[in-house]
Amino acid sequence: MSENSEKWPTAITEVKPNRIMARGYLIDELMGKVTFAQAIYLILTGELPTPNVGKLLDAIFVSSIDHGASPPSVLTARMVASTGAELNAAVAAGILAINRFHGGAVEEGQRLFLDIAKRADALGGDETAAAKAALDEMKAEGKRASGYGHRLHTKDPRTAKLFGLADELGLAGRYVRIARQTETVLAGPSGKPLPLNVDGAIAALLCDLDVPSEIGNAFFMIARVPGLVAHVHEEKTRMKPMRKVDPEDYIYDGPAERKIP
Amino acid sequence: MSENSEKWPTAITEVKPNRIMARGYLIDELMGKVTFAQAIYLILTGELPTPNVGKLLDAIFVSSIDHGASPPSVLTARMVASTGAELNAAVAAGILAINRFHGGAVEEGQRLFLDIAKRADALGGDETAAAKAALDEMKAEGKRASGYGHRLHTKDPRTAKLFGLADELGLAGRYVRIARQTETVLAGPSGKPLPLNVDGAIAALLCDLDVPSEIGNAFFMIARVPGLVAHVHEEKTRMKPMRKVDPEDYIYDGPAERKIP
Amino acid sequence: MSENSEKWPTAITEVKPNRIMARGYLIDELMGKVTFAQAIYLILTGELPTPNVGKLLDAIFVSSIDHGASPPSVLTARMVASTGAELNAAVAAGILAINRFHGGAVEEGQRLFLDIAKRADALGGDETAAAKAALDEMKAEGKRASGYGHRLHTKDPRTAKLFGLADELGLAGRYVRIARQTETVLAGPSGKPLPLNVDGAIAALLCDLDVPSEIGNAFFMIARVPGLVAHVHEEKTRMKPMRKVDPEDYIYDGPAERKIP
Amino acid sequence: MSENSEKWPTAITEVKPNRIMARGYLIDELMGKVTFAQAIYLILTGELPTPNVGKLLDAIFVSSIDHGASPPSVLTARMVASTGAELNAAVAAGILAINRFHGGAVEEGQRLFLDIAKRADALGGDETAAAKAALDEMKAEGKRASGYGHRLHTKDPRTAKLFGLADELGLAGRYVRIARQTETVLAGPSGKPLPLNVDGAIAALLCDLDVPSEIGNAFFMIARVPGLVAHVHEEKTRMKPMRKVDPEDYIYDGPAERKIP
Repeated sequence: MSENSEKWPTAITEVKPNRIMARGYLIDELMGKVTFAQAIYLILTGELPTPNVGKLLDAIFVSSIDHGASPPSVLTARMVASTGAELNAAVAAGILAINRFHGGAVEEGQRLFLDIAKRADALGGDETAAAKAALDEMKAEGKRASGYGHRLHTKDPRTAKLFGLADELGLAGRYVRIARQTETVLAGPSGKPLPLNVDGAIAALLCDLDVPSEIGNAFFMIARVPGLVAHVHEEKTRMKPMRKVDPEDYIYDGPAERKIP
Repeated sequence: MSENSEKWPTAITEVKPNRIMARGYLIDELMGKVTFAQAIYLILTGELPTPNVGKLLDAIFVSSIDHGASPPSVLTARMVASTGAELNAAVAAGILAINRFHGGAVEEGQRLFLDIAKRADALGGDETAAAKAALDEMKAEGKRASGYGHRLHTKDPRTAKLFGLADELGLAGRYVRIARQTETVLAGPSGKPLPLNVDGAIAALLCDLDVPSEIGNAFFMIARVPGLVAHVHEEKTRMKPMRKVDPEDYIYDGPAERKIP
Repeated sequence: MSENSEKWPTAITEVKPNRIMARGYLIDELMGKVTFAQAIYLILTGELPTPNVGKLLDAIFVSSIDHGASPPSVLTARMVASTGAELNAAVAAGILAINRFHGGAVEEGQRLFLDIAKRADALGGDETAAAKAALDEMKAEGKRASGYGHRLHTKDPRTAKLFGLADELGLAGRYVRIARQTETVLAGPSGKPLPLNVDGAIAALLCDLDVPSEIGNAFFMIARVPGLVAHVHEEKTRMKPMRKVDPEDYIYDGPAERKIP
Repeated sequence: MSENSEKWPTAITEVKPNRIMARGYLIDELMGKVTFAQAIYLILTGELPTPNVGKLLDAIFVSSIDHGASPPSVLTARMVASTGAELNAAVAAGILAINRFHGGAVEEGQRLFLDIAKRADALGGDETAAAKAALDEMKAEGKRASGYGHRLHTKDPRTAKLFGLADELGLAGRYVRIARQTETVLAGPSGKPLPLNVDGAIAALLCDLDVPSEIGNAFFMIARVPGLVAHVHEEKTRMKPMRKVDPEDYIYDGPAERKIP
C-alpha cells in the first residue's frame, strides 16, 4: 500500500513552500483580479463566478452586513464582550446565536424553492400550482414558509434592490420567479401580503447561482461577521464592562443620512 | 429627564420600518455601488473607503481566505464538525482558535509599526534607528517581532503581491516603508533574512489605512471565515463522522493548477 | 395591567439581597448538607434527590469525568488552548464538540429505552418483544442502537460498576432491566455480544431517576467539563504553543496504578 | 530513536481496553468510593483529597451552582438557546461569558492572597502590614481588590457558610486568615465595610487547598455549568423562540421556601 493511501483528502487548498493554490488558482494570481465576494464563492463552491455574479454576491453580502443592535447574535456578542472576553470569543458567541430562528431562513428558503421546482417538474412545469401544493402541505403540518414576512419591515428595501440587481445583471432565473410566484400565492385572494424578506430573496438568488442549500446560511453568517466585530469593538471601546445589555432600549447616535460620494 | 437618557447608544446602524442605514448610508443605496470589502471597512471604521482602498482590501481578504487544512482553526472546525455539530457551531469553534499564536500577528504587527513610527518621530524621523531600537528592546525582553518569518514560506507570494498592489494603487505609505526597513534591520549585517509574512504585510497596510490595531486581527478573522465554512462543509459531506483528524497526513486532491479566465 | 405581567418567569433561583434560594431551598442551607451531585439534580429537575440517588449520581459523574486525550472534545480543547486561548474559550470549544456522535448517546439511549417501555405497555408488558420490535424497526431504517458497543472496550468496567451500585442502592428499576434485555436481544441467537456501554448505562439509570431525555446529554457534559479543564491546563503548562496535536500518538506518563487510601 | 520519543505526553488518564485509570486510580474503583467533587479535585490537581476536603469542595460547588437569571453567562446562554441552538452550543456561549468581569474574581483573589502571603514572609510574618501594602499599591494603580464587595449582597450568606464549614472541618488555614485580615484593612478606620464575597471566599479556600490560581476560575465554571444547563432547558421548554431576553424584568415563580428534609 502506498503511503498516500493513509492520507485524508481535501480539495480546497494546496499549500507548498512559497505556493498557495486555492481550488486550482494561485492565490497571488487571484489577488487584485477577483473580489473577496468572488473568492468566497470560489472557496465554497469550487468554481470562480463571473464578474456579474461577483457583483450580485457583493450586494448579497452588503445587504446583510448589519441590522442594528437588536438581533440576538449582536446582543450575545455584546454581552460576552461586556464581561471582558477577547474579540474572537465574543464574535464566536455571536455566531452561536445564528440558528434556525435567526439567520436560518436562507437554508430553509432554499429548500422550499427547490421543493417547489421539483414539484413543478412533476406538474408539467406549473410553478404556481407547485407553490400552492407545497404551501398547503406546510400549512397542514403547522409550518410557516421561511423567507416571507418580517417583524419590522413590510416592504424590505433590500429585497427589491437584490431582485432589481439580479434582473439588471441577467441573473434572475427560475428560482427568483418561483419566489415571486410563492409571494403571490401566499397573499391569496384576500391580497393580504406576506412579503418576501431579505433571507428569502437571498435564498432564491443562491438557488439560481447553484449554491447548495447546506451552505445557504453560511452566506448570512459570512455577511454578518463584520457587523458582529463592529458591535464588539463599539462595546469594548464605548461602554462600561458588565452593563445590562437591554435588548430594546438603545438609540442610534451615528452620522445622519448622507449620500455615497 | 427625557426617556432617551436611559437608552444606550450605538453609532453603527439605524433600523426603522423599511429603512436600514449603516454608518449614515442607506443599505439599499450601498448595495450595487460598493463591494463587500468596502462595506466591511465602512462598518468597522465608520467611513466609506475609496474604490482604490476597496481594491486593496479585496486583495487583503483574498490573501487570507484559506491556507489549507493544517491551521489550528481549520483542524478545530473540522474536528467539531466530525462530531455532528451544526455548521455555525463548528465555525465558532474554529474562530475560538484564532488567538495570539494563530491569526494574532496582525494586531501585534500593527502595534510594532505604530511604535516604530512614534519612536522615529522622537528621533527626528530616523525610521531605521527607530526600528533598530524597538527590535533591540524586544530582543532584550525575549520577544520575537510579530509579522516576520514563516514556518513554511521563505518568500511568501502574498506579501509581495500585497505590497505591489499597494504601490500600484498609490496606497503604500509610511507604514509599508517602516515594514520594509524593519525587514532590513532584522536581516542584519549577516543578511540572513527573516522575511515579512502576510500578517505583517496586512499589519503595515492597515496602519496606512488608519485601521486601529484593536481590530487588526478581525481582518484575518473575517477573511478566514469562508475558508472555515468550506472545510466544515467538506468534512460533513466527504468524511465519516468521528474520524481521527490527523493534523499532517492529508493530501490535496482538488483541481490542478488553472489560469483565471 | 400589573407591572409583573410584563416580567418573564423563571422557576430556578430567586436572588434577593443576602438571600439566594435555589428551587425553594436557601443555598446556604444546602451547602454542607447536600453534595454537588445532589445539587446538580436539584437545579436540573427541581427536586432534591435522596442521599442514595446522590451516591448513584456521584458515580455517574465520576464514571465520565475523563477518558484520556483522544475524545474529540479533548483534542479540540487542547488545539484551541495551543493557539493561546483563554481557559474558558478552550473549554467552550471542547463543549462544542459534544454532539450526536460524541457524548450524544445518553439522550438517544434514553429515547430508545422510553420507546421500548411504551411499546411493552402496549404489548401487555412483554419487554423483550418490545425491545425486539424497536430494534427491528431501527435496523430497517439503517439506524444503530445508541448506548451499545464501544470502539475500544468489549466489557466496559464503568457499566458493570454503575449497574452494580444501582442494584446495591435499590435504584435499578424498569429501565435498567430493559437495558439488559435489549443487550440480550442485540446479542441474538448467535450470542455475539454488542455490550451496553457507559452512555447506555447512564441512559437507563437516568430514565429510572425520572430525568427527561432532553437533558440526558447534559449529564455527560457536566461530568466531562472538569476533564476538559485538566487537559487545557496541562496543554498550557506542559506543551509548546502551536504544536501539532496528533489525535493518536500520545503516551500516558502519569502515576502508576495506585490504590485508594 | 524509539517510537515513544515521538509521542506527546499526558499525565491525566490512561485508557486501555476495558481499563481506565485516572491519575493512577482505576475509574471503576473511584466510582462509589469518592464523590464527584473529590474526583474533580483529583483530575485537576493530580491527587485525591481527603473526605473532609471533599466536603468543603462540595460546599464550594453548591455555593456557585446558580445565581438567578441576571448573570451575563445565563443571559447569553438563554439568548443563544432562544435562537434554536443545541443545548451544548448554548452552554458553550454561556461559558464564553465567564471572564475577567464575571467569574474571574477567583483567580484574581487567589493572586492577591498569594501576593500578601509572600509580602508577609518578607515582613517577618506581619500579614496585616502586608495586606495594607498590597492594597495601597493596587489603589495607586487604580485597581480594585478582587473578591470584595457585591452589587447586591452586603453580607453574602455563602461567604459566612463557607468559612464556617472550613473552620468546622479544620481546613481554614493561612489564606482564610489573610482574607479576613484584608477585609479588616479594607474597612479601614472608618469601619465602612467592603465585605468578602463568595468568589473571594472560594479564592482563599482554594489557596489553602493548594489549588494553583491558574485554574481557580475553573472552579466557578465547573460549578456554574449545571445552572447554565437548567436555564437553557427552561428557555427551550418554557419560552417562545426569539423573545427579547430582558436582563432585569424577570420574576421568580418557582417553589416557595422549603426546608431540606
